[in-house]
Amino acid sequence: MSSEIFDRVAIIGLGLIGSSIGHAIKRAGLAHHIAGYARTEKTRKKALEIGFVDTVYETAAQAAEGADLILVCVPVGACGSVSREIAGSLKPGAILTDVGSAKEAVIRAMRPHVPEGVHFIPGHPIAGTENSGPESGFATLFDGRWCILTPVAGTNPEALQRLTNFWESCGSMVDQMSADHHDQVLAITSHLPHLIAYNIVGTVADLEEDSKSEVAKFSAGGFRDFTRLAASDPIMWRDVCIANREALLEMLGRFTEDLSALQRYIRRGDAEKLQALFTRTRDMRRKIVEAGQETPEVDFGRHAADDLGGPE
Amino acid sequence: MSSEIFDRVAIIGLGLIGSSIGHAIKRAGLAHHIAGYARTEKTRKKALEIGFVDTVYETAAQAAEGADLILVCVPVGACGSVSREIAGSLKPGAILTDVGSAKEAVIRAMRPHVPEGVHFIPGHPIAGTENSGPESGFATLFDGRWCILTPVAGTNPEALQRLTNFWESCGSMVDQMSADHHDQVLAITSHLPHLIAYNIVGTVADLEEDSKSEVAKFSAGGFRDFTRLAASDPIMWRDVCIANREALLEMLGRFTEDLSALQRYIRRGDAEKLQALFTRTRDMRRKIVEAGQETPEVDFGRHAADDLGGPE
Repeated sequence: MSSEIFDRVAIIGLGLIGSSIGHAIKRAGLAHHIAGYARTEKTRKKALEIGFVDTVYETAAQAAEGADLILVCVPVGACGSVSREIAGSLKPGAILTDVGSAKEAVIRAMRPHVPEGVHFIPGHPIAGTENSGPESGFATLFDGRWCILTPVAGTNPEALQRLTNFWESCGSMVDQMSADHHDQVLAITSHLPHLIAYNIVGTVADLEEDSKSEVAKFSAGGFRDFTRLAASDPIMWRDVCIANREALLEMLGRFTEDLSALQRYIRRGDAEKLQALFTRTRDMRRKIVEAGQETPEVDFGRHAADDLGGPE
Repeated sequence: MSSEIFDRVAIIGLGLIGSSIGHAIKRAGLAHHIAGYARTEKTRKKALEIGFVDTVYETAAQAAEGADLILVCVPVGACGSVSREIAGSLKPGAILTDVGSAKEAVIRAMRPHVPEGVHFIPGHPIAGTENSGPESGFATLFDGRWCILTPVAGTNPEALQRLTNFWESCGSMVDQMSADHHDQVLAITSHLPHLIAYNIVGTVADLEEDSKSEVAKFSAGGFRDFTRLAASDPIMWRDVCIANREALLEMLGRFTEDLSALQRYIRRGDAEKLQALFTRTRDMRRKIVEAGQETPEVDFGRHAADDLGGPE
């Protein structure tokens, strides 16, 4: 991979993804200058202090001015207004991209604002943690993870190659697909899982305080696995659910149909059907480990990080 | 805690829990002799080879004969028949316990077979991994985890204290509650989460082969978190679902009600309601970390065990 150095990169939005991109750029030396923008002064100050940007600006337009690569790292619902704001400052030949988890909605929102001569290439790095904010980023977040680009018709091939090189230099593997296909795949790999996790943790959050403490105490029985996703950024996920609602409702429909059948097996005590389902699902984890997207360590390698001790 | 040494302990069932108990007993020197029983010769041989038991027997009755502490570590649905089988070999004064995840059903199944003079005290260590079989056990599995005892009326206090000491010496913290309350709490902390995980992975398992590979590839977006629980032992979970069906169906009812509401918010694009739910759930993870039941490391500490690199 050839690591082109950008003269000036602008990161609009300095949360988990924006800050991690800053760190990854610094790690690989991919830019002479990183300009940053965040809505609050507190975040801008923190970003400068941590040092994953070189300068910060009070408006997105100022940060984007003169940049060769502009990464929009705000919640999906804010992509449209940010694009409108920065449109007048974009340099001809610049690459404009984003990191949103719903591509059709983002394209609808951003594309109308993109000036002639600016290369708009939507993107989505499939990486994250349950933490948010400028302190939560780290340089290795994208290492070994996929980044999906969903170029629109007529995209400049050279610009596409440069953005591909950029993500590869950030540690990613890069794939291309249509926005529509992306949204279908992500509905099942990411959006439905988050929704289900939010829902089950929400069911528990409705219990009385005493019961909630008991749930925390005995959560190693399985529940705790869901609380990680359900601790993710609420604004981001609010926007994703609305932006990708059609694909998500379709997947949710399949999920609830399957759940109704499962409920019936339990009510009837249908041991054979239950065992068949519970056997059929085992294989999926192996597939994911083989795809290099999961640690082969038992229990997510959780014990390794656990103060309480771990497997020998 | 006073670590009484048992002269002879019998472990009936040598899977993840049975083998981990064997390792934990050896680690703390809690028995002069550990006798083991497993249905297959392969498992019995493997257990001896690994060395977490001292002898193995071809029948559960032989293994239980003359033991001071008998731990029944078989799937919940097999507890009744195992108890009937070993009843004639149990020594007066012996403690008989189990590790099943549904206590009322286990009590109904085991209690009728317990001879006069034998102390039957149902138990449940809240610990496990996604792996099964005699190779999957390790000595630290119970460290810092809760073990719930659900003594029936008239339980001998001294026997109860001895079993409590035993579990504490295996690394556990011990709690007591009624079988009924246990089953309610576990329905939400363990059984519902497993069911939901099995269901969502089942929905994916129904996709075509191409789509499944794509799901594996992009599973870091959230889906992979569910595959751990859905890789658990199918027989164990088949039995638990049937044994605790009432409490589980009640919790499943709450979950699906909540999910219907959530589905409606998405369909209507109700940003306010979505954000409120997604904010309300964040706190749960903090509670679990504070309860000492989860690693405070980001992403389950997954990166630490990951070949692909990790946070600095």
